[in-house]
Amino acid sequence: MLKLLIPIALMLTNAVSQAGGEFRHIVMFKFKDSATPAQIAAVEKAFGELPAKIDTITDYEWGTSESVEGKNDGLTHCFFVTFKDKAGLETYIPHPAHVAFKEILIPILDKALVFDYTAKD
Amino acid sequence: MLKLLIPIALMLTNAVSQAGGEFRHIVMFKFKDSATPAQIAAVEKAFGELPAKIDTITDYEWGTSESVEGKNDGLTHCFFVTFKDKAGLETYIPHPAHVAFKEILIPILDKALVFDYTAKD
Repeated sequence: MLKLLIPIALMLTNAVSQAGGEFRHIVMFKFKDSATPAQIAAVEKAFGELPAKIDTITDYEWGTSESVEGKNDGLTHCFFVTFKDKAGLETYIPHPAHVAFKEILIPILDKALVFDYTAKD
Repeated sequence: MLKLLIPIALMLTNAVSQAGGEFRHIVMFKFKDSATPAQIAAVEKAFGELPAKIDTITDYEWGTSESVEGKNDGLTHCFFVTFKDKAGLETYIPHPAHVAFKEILIPILDKALVFDYTAKD
């Protein structure tokens, strides 16, 4: 019975900690007009491979702009990356997999906006 | 037993649907230099009251910039609002509670960036 209860207790603890306190790293891109659909798809794919390569990433999602109010300043892509804490992001930035990703990104990047925050309810 | 299983099954279905497909509405602000801490706190409080007033909001969190790379373009506040779908956002925008919130916001707002997307894994 105890063997069953311990993992359940750990799951509940984890669920509570996820209600706030995660470190969010929001990354938005506008690509150059010269960027091809294949180049953009390569960036989307390469970003999506980072969570498997960098273990401080605890959650990941992304999407493309479906602006309702037209206030997205030309940015077309948003990647929403979560770390347990700011130290997780500080490990990620210089990580070889992230550096290699940037080599795919930079040649087609017009501009990027990055916003980091600790999630509060 | 069936009475117990049905809510558990619904919870599991809900958990799966939350893995992707939510409509995200990211709102970032830079306030005017003339904005007082009390005025900014009033905006933070008023935004945080919207989920209780507008029932198409399914999740809400926010935080202030803890920029690591300095690429936040002067934006200091991020509000991460989730709807079941784009229609939820379209209900929210003209909602009287959102309109009233903007009356508190606009006098102290320097600039806003808004990015809407459907979450994908």
